Amino acid sequence: MTCLFLYHGRGKAQDFRVNEDRLHSTLMTLSTYGKNEKGGSDRIAYSSHDVEARDYVKELMIKAGMEVSVDFAGNIIGRRPGRNPEMKPISFGSHIDEVPNGGDYDGPVGSLAAIEVVQTLAENRLYTDHPLEVIIFTNEEGGVVGSRAIVGALSQEAIQVVSNAGVTQAEGIKLLGGNPERIPEIKRNPGDIAAFLELHIEQGGNLYNEKLDIGVVEGIVAIEWWEISFKGKANHAGTTPMDMRKDPMLPAAELILEVNRIVNSFEGRQVGTVGKIQAFPGAGNVIPGEVKLNLEIRDLSSEKIWTIYKEIEAKAKELAEKSETQLDINHIEVASKPALADPMIREIIQKEAEKLGLTTKSLPSGAGHDAQEMARIAPMGMIFIPSKDGISHAPEEYSSKKDIANGANVLLNTILTLDRTLK
Amino acid sequence: MTCLFLYHGRGKAQDFRVNEDRLHSTLMTLSTYGKNEKGGSDRIAYSSHDVEARDYVKELMIKAGMEVSVDFAGNIIGRRPGRNPEMKPISFGSHIDEVPNGGDYDGPVGSLAAIEVVQTLAENRLYTDHPLEVIIFTNEEGGVVGSRAIVGALSQEAIQVVSNAGVTQAEGIKLLGGNPERIPEIKRNPGDIAAFLELHIEQGGNLYNEKLDIGVVEGIVAIEWWEISFKGKANHAGTTPMDMRKDPMLPAAELILEVNRIVNSFEGRQVGTVGKIQAFPGAGNVIPGEVKLNLEIRDLSSEKIWTIYKEIEAKAKELAEKSETQLDINHIEVASKPALADPMIREIIQKEAEKLGLTTKSLPSGAGHDAQEMARIAPMGMIFIPSKDGISHAPEEYSSKKDIANGANVLLNTILTLDRTLK
Repeated sequence: MTCLFLYHGRGKAQDFRVNEDRLHSTLMTLSTYGKNEKGGSDRIAYSSHDVEARDYVKELMIKAGMEVSVDFAGNIIGRRPGRNPEMKPISFGSHIDEVPNGGDYDGPVGSLAAIEVVQTLAENRLYTDHPLEVIIFTNEEGGVVGSRAIVGALSQEAIQVVSNAGVTQAEGIKLLGGNPERIPEIKRNPGDIAAFLELHIEQGGNLYNEKLDIGVVEGIVAIEWWEISFKGKANHAGTTPMDMRKDPMLPAAELILEVNRIVNSFEGRQVGTVGKIQAFPGAGNVIPGEVKLNLEIRDLSSEKIWTIYKEIEAKAKELAEKSETQLDINHIEVASKPALADPMIREIIQKEAEKLGLTTKSLPSGAGHDAQEMARIAPMGMIFIPSKDGISHAPEEYSSKKDIANGANVLLNTILTLDRTLK
Repeated sequence: MTCLFLYHGRGKAQDFRVNEDRLHSTLMTLSTYGKNEKGGSDRIAYSSHDVEARDYVKELMIKAGMEVSVDFAGNIIGRRPGRNPEMKPISFGSHIDEVPNGGDYDGPVGSLAAIEVVQTLAENRLYTDHPLEVIIFTNEEGGVVGSRAIVGALSQEAIQVVSNAGVTQAEGIKLLGGNPERIPEIKRNPGDIAAFLELHIEQGGNLYNEKLDIGVVEGIVAIEWWEISFKGKANHAGTTPMDMRKDPMLPAAELILEVNRIVNSFEGRQVGTVGKIQAFPGAGNVIPGEVKLNLEIRDLSSEKIWTIYKEIEAKAKELAEKSETQLDINHIEVASKPALADPMIREIIQKEAEKLGLTTKSLPSGAGHDAQEMARIAPMGMIFIPSKDGISHAPEEYSSKKDIANGANVLLNTILTLDRTLK
């Protein structure tokens, strides 16, 4: 490790740019690990593709001058010392595991951009006051396993769950070089990390459709689920006259339309979805005895979610009464609390993007991320780049080379400004 | 066989009544064949319960003085000669097989009442001009197999289908003493049967709810099925803003309500049902890419069914356009054509019921019956009795002893009047 510390001062910080070609080239190389015949990525966590790709990532970290280790939860940690060893690290990173038959950008963009940022700093002999830390998290797609471990929220039960690779989380973590029994030792507390940043593709169509460069994430939304059941009376569809039916399909259909109307009647960017519906017994010649549907509402504010829900619930009760059906609603615990981005970090991201001549939009993240977990112990910021047609978790996932470089440049300059701002 | 032919003349015909207690007692005995722990009947066609119960039924026929045979399709045929051997038989009967975990009345009521009618005639030494024929049809619940065979509508493919008992129809028919290869030989043509009558429980709540004694069946409804699909765009339920969705759940929900509204907007007793709905992929956190639903419409008039359908189709197209989803509709062949009851027979049933002091209602049969097949070759009439709460195909199925006797008395007197009327 060289001991020549240089600092270029405030005025010049915005001049630094990552190497766009190199970043894109590493991304394309990473995409070869686990590429399937359909053009999708099968680099699911704990698979041989994941294990091999991690070796590639570690090599890139070493080339960028980082000290590389794997923690007990299998997270790859690349460290670069700061000029002030007393300071807590500025951490950033993402994941390289994918959903089955997934894409090449959700996770890899933020992971390789993080390494490219450090590589760029190294080439420019640029040192920060804060130590820097790149984290490639274990199994994000299968339950934000690595980030939960770091914040101390990964239970002993959770690591016994079988993952998509067919092994338990605990067995998978061992395959990555971790030690499941010692996971509690890696827990970090509030104050242990100066700030956490994550660059990611949007996984939605806001930036792409509006032709904007950078999304400044306001926070990661909370998710609430309910299972709603209307019970009527199953009966013969041929012999039961229309006026003698207690058909739960009717209030269920009406509620679906009401969910859409009510969610849209509020100002803001909340979303509400009925993605699943089932009729029982579910035969074409039987009036259903029961219809079950799933309601999901997401928003940055839990309070707003519950306000919207209460209105839907009141309507559901009204519909059940009108149709003489029995209403049952179960709230399903999905343990997804909102995670707000740090206002100061949001402002820095916004300004650095503008300095780079990029257009921006503030928006919530409707999907979960490792940053959501990290927000429990550190001021958090997230940077989004456009994702073509808003597609993610599919082989068609795509972000342009230019957009990826834009995101990496915003990440780089945000880190430099944060380094000067945070004390 | 006695040769003492007596005839009591027109004026006295209405004096004959079946033996209510005996009829009920045979029905209760029959119900013991295949009774399960839940109180339901597992007397499915071709099961050992069915085979044993058929022996019991044959005994009752012999006791009633009938000549008993089993045809090549396994139908049990009980014959009683008429005074005029030139005349074609008046046939009547039903089935004794049940759906799995079914009840004790759907089929047995009409079967045992038919035998009781002949027993009553025998006791009263009353002979008809027409030969009489009681038919206990093979596997009604599993595809009106026996009646289809008699009318020549049972295909070679149909008898290779595996039945609920786990054997093919062909194997099952052998177990009953039939000969599947020779089934074509039992085919009867129009004119071979003077009239066909069936007494049955209503399987609907019209008579029971309105406290009426006898249903004069107008006919057995036609059934048409359609599978309707709306295709939108599957997407992330968290990251896709409300105004960027193409959610097929919304037009599907609206169509369900429209089906109900349109079916009810026509005069008459048509019924329309959406009994099945599925969203794909069908996860709470995914906006569906496709929603499929089944539409069924039943009415005595095929033309009316298609008029109603055309209105629903037009609405579906409108909803697809409005929601920017793709509509696909497939008509599913269920081969259930309407079967109208013979007007003269309907009138006789009506009058005989009134003579017996019973209240009546004309109504369609929403369910299929052997009579529907028999109507292809003979003037057909059906008599319904009340079914408690309209329940059928379940252990709770129930008709009172009195209602059953009422039905049998109407059947008896209808046969006697038909015998005098038909030449």
